[in-house]
Amino acid sequence: MPTTIAVVHGPNLNLLGKREVGIYGGKTMEEINAEVASAARILGVDVEFYQSNSEGDLVTYIQNCVGRVAGIVINAGAYTHYSIAVRDALAAVKIPTAEVHISNIYQREPFRHTSVIAPVCVGQISGFGGYGYVLALQALVHGAE
Amino acid sequence: MPTTIAVVHGPNLNLLGKREVGIYGGKTMEEINAEVASAARILGVDVEFYQSNSEGDLVTYIQNCVGRVAGIVINAGAYTHYSIAVRDALAAVKIPTAEVHISNIYQREPFRHTSVIAPVCVGQISGFGGYGYVLALQALVHGAE
Amino acid sequence: MPTTIAVVHGPNLNLLGKREVGIYGGKTMEEINAEVASAARILGVDVEFYQSNSEGDLVTYIQNCVGRVAGIVINAGAYTHYSIAVRDALAAVKIPTAEVHISNIYQREPFRHTSVIAPVCVGQISGFGGYGYVLALQALVHGAE
Amino acid sequence: MPTTIAVVHGPNLNLLGKREVGIYGGKTMEEINAEVASAARILGVDVEFYQSNSEGDLVTYIQNCVGRVAGIVINAGAYTHYSIAVRDALAAVKIPTAEVHISNIYQREPFRHTSVIAPVCVGQISGFGGYGYVLALQALVHGAE
Amino acid sequence: MPTTIAVVHGPNLNLLGKREVGIYGGKTMEEINAEVASAARILGVDVEFYQSNSEGDLVTYIQNCVGRVAGIVINAGAYTHYSIAVRDALAAVKIPTAEVHISNIYQREPFRHTSVIAPVCVGQISGFGGYGYVLALQALVHGAE
Amino acid sequence: MPTTIAVVHGPNLNLLGKREVGIYGGKTMEEINAEVASAARILGVDVEFYQSNSEGDLVTYIQNCVGRVAGIVINAGAYTHYSIAVRDALAAVKIPTAEVHISNIYQREPFRHTSVIAPVCVGQISGFGGYGYVLALQALVHGAE
Amino acid sequence: MPTTIAVVHGPNLNLLGKREVGIYGGKTMEEINAEVASAARILGVDVEFYQSNSEGDLVTYIQNCVGRVAGIVINAGAYTHYSIAVRDALAAVKIPTAEVHISNIYQREPFRHTSVIAPVCVGQISGFGGYGYVLALQALVHGAE
Amino acid sequence: MPTTIAVVHGPNLNLLGKREVGIYGGKTMEEINAEVASAARILGVDVEFYQSNSEGDLVTYIQNCVGRVAGIVINAGAYTHYSIAVRDALAAVKIPTAEVHISNIYQREPFRHTSVIAPVCVGQISGFGGYGYVLALQALVHGAE
Amino acid sequence: MPTTIAVVHGPNLNLLGKREVGIYGGKTMEEINAEVASAARILGVDVEFYQSNSEGDLVTYIQNCVGRVAGIVINAGAYTHYSIAVRDALAAVKIPTAEVHISNIYQREPFRHTSVIAPVCVGQISGFGGYGYVLALQALVHGAE
Amino acid sequence: MPTTIAVVHGPNLNLLGKREVGIYGGKTMEEINAEVASAARILGVDVEFYQSNSEGDLVTYIQNCVGRVAGIVINAGAYTHYSIAVRDALAAVKIPTAEVHISNIYQREPFRHTSVIAPVCVGQISGFGGYGYVLALQALVHGAE
Amino acid sequence: MPTTIAVVHGPNLNLLGKREVGIYGGKTMEEINAEVASAARILGVDVEFYQSNSEGDLVTYIQNCVGRVAGIVINAGAYTHYSIAVRDALAAVKIPTAEVHISNIYQREPFRHTSVIAPVCVGQISGFGGYGYVLALQALVHGAE
Amino acid sequence: MPTTIAVVHGPNLNLLGKREVGIYGGKTMEEINAEVASAARILGVDVEFYQSNSEGDLVTYIQNCVGRVAGIVINAGAYTHYSIAVRDALAAVKIPTAEVHISNIYQREPFRHTSVIAPVCVGQISGFGGYGYVLALQALVHGAE
Repeated sequence: MPTTIAVVHGPNLNLLGKREVGIYGGKTMEEINAEVASAARILGVDVEFYQSNSEGDLVTYIQNCVGRVAGIVINAGAYTHYSIAVRDALAAVKIPTAEVHISNIYQREPFRHTSVIAPVCVGQISGFGGYGYVLALQALVHGAE
Repeated sequence: MPTTIAVVHGPNLNLLGKREVGIYGGKTMEEINAEVASAARILGVDVEFYQSNSEGDLVTYIQNCVGRVAGIVINAGAYTHYSIAVRDALAAVKIPTAEVHISNIYQREPFRHTSVIAPVCVGQISGFGGYGYVLALQALVHGAE
Repeated sequence: MPTTIAVVHGPNLNLLGKREVGIYGGKTMEEINAEVASAARILGVDVEFYQSNSEGDLVTYIQNCVGRVAGIVINAGAYTHYSIAVRDALAAVKIPTAEVHISNIYQREPFRHTSVIAPVCVGQISGFGGYGYVLALQALVHGAE
Repeated sequence: MPTTIAVVHGPNLNLLGKREVGIYGGKTMEEINAEVASAARILGVDVEFYQSNSEGDLVTYIQNCVGRVAGIVINAGAYTHYSIAVRDALAAVKIPTAEVHISNIYQREPFRHTSVIAPVCVGQISGFGGYGYVLALQALVHGAE
Repeated sequence: MPTTIAVVHGPNLNLLGKREVGIYGGKTMEEINAEVASAARILGVDVEFYQSNSEGDLVTYIQNCVGRVAGIVINAGAYTHYSIAVRDALAAVKIPTAEVHISNIYQREPFRHTSVIAPVCVGQISGFGGYGYVLALQALVHGAE
Repeated sequence: MPTTIAVVHGPNLNLLGKREVGIYGGKTMEEINAEVASAARILGVDVEFYQSNSEGDLVTYIQNCVGRVAGIVINAGAYTHYSIAVRDALAAVKIPTAEVHISNIYQREPFRHTSVIAPVCVGQISGFGGYGYVLALQALVHGAE
Repeated sequence: MPTTIAVVHGPNLNLLGKREVGIYGGKTMEEINAEVASAARILGVDVEFYQSNSEGDLVTYIQNCVGRVAGIVINAGAYTHYSIAVRDALAAVKIPTAEVHISNIYQREPFRHTSVIAPVCVGQISGFGGYGYVLALQALVHGAE
Repeated sequence: MPTTIAVVHGPNLNLLGKREVGIYGGKTMEEINAEVASAARILGVDVEFYQSNSEGDLVTYIQNCVGRVAGIVINAGAYTHYSIAVRDALAAVKIPTAEVHISNIYQREPFRHTSVIAPVCVGQISGFGGYGYVLALQALVHGAE
Repeated sequence: MPTTIAVVHGPNLNLLGKREVGIYGGKTMEEINAEVASAARILGVDVEFYQSNSEGDLVTYIQNCVGRVAGIVINAGAYTHYSIAVRDALAAVKIPTAEVHISNIYQREPFRHTSVIAPVCVGQISGFGGYGYVLALQALVHGAE
Repeated sequence: MPTTIAVVHGPNLNLLGKREVGIYGGKTMEEINAEVASAARILGVDVEFYQSNSEGDLVTYIQNCVGRVAGIVINAGAYTHYSIAVRDALAAVKIPTAEVHISNIYQREPFRHTSVIAPVCVGQISGFGGYGYVLALQALVHGAE
Repeated sequence: MPTTIAVVHGPNLNLLGKREVGIYGGKTMEEINAEVASAARILGVDVEFYQSNSEGDLVTYIQNCVGRVAGIVINAGAYTHYSIAVRDALAAVKIPTAEVHISNIYQREPFRHTSVIAPVCVGQISGFGGYGYVLALQALVHGAE
Repeated sequence: MPTTIAVVHGPNLNLLGKREVGIYGGKTMEEINAEVASAARILGVDVEFYQSNSEGDLVTYIQNCVGRVAGIVINAGAYTHYSIAVRDALAAVKIPTAEVHISNIYQREPFRHTSVIAPVCVGQISGFGGYGYVLALQALVHGAE
């Protein structure tokens, strides 16, 4: 089994810590990535980070994980709620995937209560801020499906 | 801040590891509790375990956490999907709560896709087996909302 | 006609005045009961109080009202919205029942807009705080269906 | 605080006691008004009565209550279920309002189970016949929101 | 039994024959009334005509039919689809009523497929143009429920 | 224009006057046909009667009306509510059709409130008993679309 | 009271035991009929068997049961879910009817969860294989509504 | 295989024969149990009876059937319609279960048309009064899934 | 083309600037009318203002615009969401109409997201405060359909 | 494998080319059959044609295909949208089936967007006129599932 | 306040004036931009134009408006109806935004009646052709929220 | 008429034959393209292939087909179910388009049963594997709309 975990951020997550900190917290994406990298070192795995606002680029990135990556931590942002293309990519590559949401999506607008990617992921972590990425990494490394 | 976290198991979770291991995995509730206790020692917190098949007893237990417990990890089992009484208890006591599900509830019957307690919890962890309790404990101790 | 009215409180109403006073007001259940008892003395009826967090115990209590109680004032709390068991108990005993809600349930979450017990009660009083119990008592004693 | 309460009857309530007495009881609107007036004297407030079959006239009447009336008891009749215009008038004038229904609207056709004015009223009293108006008056005078 | 039938036209029916003749035909309301009057003479009954754009006035007119009118032919126009006030008036007066629509309401927008007054009328005639009023008159005079 | 009108009865209408007379009245199908035949003589048209319990036979009968029949009066019975096959036959033959229901279908179970054939008929007459067939015949002969 | 019970099989039930035995079991319709006949002899009643793929023929058969048959055991097959014509026939003849399903229809596709004939039958037996016919026969002979 | 069948009654079934006999019949739960016991003797099995108004107690009782009981006959009363906890208990213990309803639940309020336990039972018997328990016992002993 | 534009205000808009200024802003209807009149002078058209709380009066006013008015700017207030009578009037007169809303109706309660008059207007302007009336006037004078 | 393909036409398809040519094109069923026969000769298979307006006859025909026919091309016409009986027949016989629609059913009324037989067919071809039958034949002979 | 307004066109708006002129009018995007630029000069603001068919590029462009642009006029084309990513970008940058639609979206297919971006915009202008962009620009410059 | 047909593959179709072969078959996109190219040679047309994971790029490609391409065969993959942008592009260019799906989308998850592009295509072919592209090509070249 390869030893790299991909950490994928969807649209608008590049604004983390800069906008709407009341909802998403004050940490930037770079700060979260740094914390994930620290945790990865402790867990003994490599991590690779990717962010895109483009649905198609996210699909392509996921496709390119095949044979190179042992697990995916993904916060698909808005695409969580309607991108069947991202879902199909995850289903196709069959790489164990942990879905993360910074905010508790079940406390927000009804359209955020549904994740079209959840059924093709191992599990979901929602509401624990940037720390959710660290938990997801742990879950992929230590957890059992 | 007090140093005890309550770990609450709802109906039928006393059967974990004994029945339907294909869905819920082969670990018993006692084994999961032991793993949570280990993690708690490392995290420096006390844990207290409770299981009940009774909605009313779960409500009463949650009420009695006030002033005694700093956080709640709860897998409300079937009550997740309809117990507004458990929701109201959690909302009333205002103790930070992490919701856990052993299976990925979004891969199962549609009625399991809705959690009536999710909007009153800090966050939700679903699909990472018994290890999800450990993640939830961590989230309450280290995570930020 | 017997001269006792049962006043029944459902789950979490034992927390009245102690938690979420912004929604439910600052009076405790005991204070409300005292006001109801005062009103009962003026109206010339006896009152009996019961509270339980357990759906089954509420059902059993209602069953035991038969032949002993002339009317029921009930705030079924969260069970209002889904307990067909409580509804069936009220329908079976056929004792005139007045449904009370402290908060205006029509200003809150959509799931609180539906009462499954309303169709088997004489009427409903919602939104007038703890005073609603007194109004309900009056309605049973003086009102006409 | 002014000392007048407006008692407002919507469409067809002028037929009370004359038609469909099986549903609405045998008291006329005038008889109910007389009982309300009696109760008002005891409670030490003035009451003013108004009935109209016209949605627009009800809106105008409610608007004209501003600065003159301390509370409104309203049975909006059929308009309860669809008159957003009446709702908007009540929301605009911000006078504490108690909603009354003579019959238990939750025992009738599904379209009567929804009140579009309920969310802008203090509370609702349904199913206690003409006596509900007296209870509503009390609720406005003595009750707390 | 009195020998007068009221023929009631709701909002915008005063424009018949002047606007949207593709949907409603080229006959004016006055021409239809004349045809109904002719048919009434043949059938040996009196007819009385009423048109209003006002929901409240229609309610009041229907109330005033009591004791004076043996049957009502009504085309409630747009109010057909939402005026529970008109429905309640018809239900209250209990005068046999025939509902008419000039156009076939089942070939038009979905919101026109539902008549809230249909359940309180003897029957409904839709789609036969102005002649539907004549058929409705006949139905009230000769037909059996 | 040919001078024959087909009068078509769907499933179970052969039981008219024999069963469920509380809903459908006491006249047999033969008696209704006789009344329609009388009316036809006055209106100067021929009528042809057909009844079948079979959806397929009704479709075939309607197809065979082409070139032979100038109008159709149809009470499709239960097929009214789901037979797209009958609807398609009526749409295909393009013969002006009047839909009849003996009972007021809008006072009955919700599934009877929808007619899948209504959008392809000239109009609908519902609730005037067997006399509705006579009205429908008149509508086809004298009425205007 | 006559002593014959009709046992009616709807569409495709003539294929029982020959196709899809994983769902419907391995017994043929003839074998089931034989078992029912045996049970009938013990219960002291006559049985008459009928199968048709045609909705109209089933309607006609049910109509012809009047005055000849004391009860009906029916497995309407696919028509269970949409044949209002069969429902109307059963409602018209008013012969006590027991509805049978070989498979547990509540474990199958959602459209099989609804029976349009259930509300006009005495009761329903689902999921007990061909033996359900025997139970239904017993229920009609010995059971009480 | 053990030779005991558990017969489980849910909430309010202890009132059978005492209340609402128009809906549920005049037999008491004890009389039904006696009939079931008689039938069991004939069928050569033991029966064990249990009734509770408490959802949690029903769950616990079902859990305790493991290894002790060969089949379950259950009338879950009101819990039929919403107790996923009871459903999960039945699914977990995997003991063949027959669901019984005294009344025909498909002739009653819409919320009684859905059984959340039906998908985890072998089959369902509804509408044949107390005799349904006897049929269910037979089905478990003689029937085939 | 005539040179008058009618500016129509529906129910409760006479309260603008006096009540709920947080939602509707601080300008009175008279101030908005003055701004519209200014803009009209610049655009070289006449404007005529009308306000009513009565649905029927609004219908009548719209009917009376025929032959006298070249365009209508309408804020139908609450009637926007349910008055098919107002819609039918606008559809009948076929005068180009611009719909205005002071608040952004898509940020408010779900029932305000639907306008039943939008499909018969040229266009809609929502959320730009009282200035929306000026924009609507411009749109009618300068804009293209 | 046998070498015959059945080509099945449902209700009203015998009218093809004669009625509603704007929707279904100008070719008759006989002309389409001739083209299919030509294509079959080229593909080296036999074809057998069947048309019926009767749901039951279509079911029986499909049942009789067993052991005689290697594939079915079916245009079930109106039955496409509701005939679970036809669906069950196709599911039972397990003969590879290609569903055809002459018109593009997704451009028509919403009730035509759902095919209850699609889930039991290999595939569906819609919108290519009579040529769709030829394509379906090819798909069965050459295509792979 | 900065002096630049961004004018953003979503997918397929580069085809304006070239395709489907019956729906969208005959002006090209370039011609509309020129009119907007003219209006901007009069209003004393700068405008910047952007068009993309890519959802991700639109998100990125909106993100890059921060600190550089004082207002956004956006016609998000098809993305209006489902792009939560565009919505989230607008919500994040918190730049006052006016939504424009060339056609009246409420006269078109139901899926076009919902704008997922409307709740995060100041207001919406729909149906006034290309002139709507000019109105939107004015609204941002002169209007009040 | 030009002689080129564009064959367009949406997101994840570049993985054909490599992933999820149980659902999509074992042929790669390149192999399917080769078969389509063969068929094109026989049919005497040119084909041009395009694949993209990006919705925006698909829109742009479709726009660029104008004046260059006589027909489009499209498998829009996941975008089939929500890309109104792709639909609008197809509607705008008005090039005859055949929609293809490799799997039978009506046997899969409910969200795959709806194609938002179907209403703007000539027709749809679903479930015949990679061979569906060849059928679609034929349909465009030989078929009639």
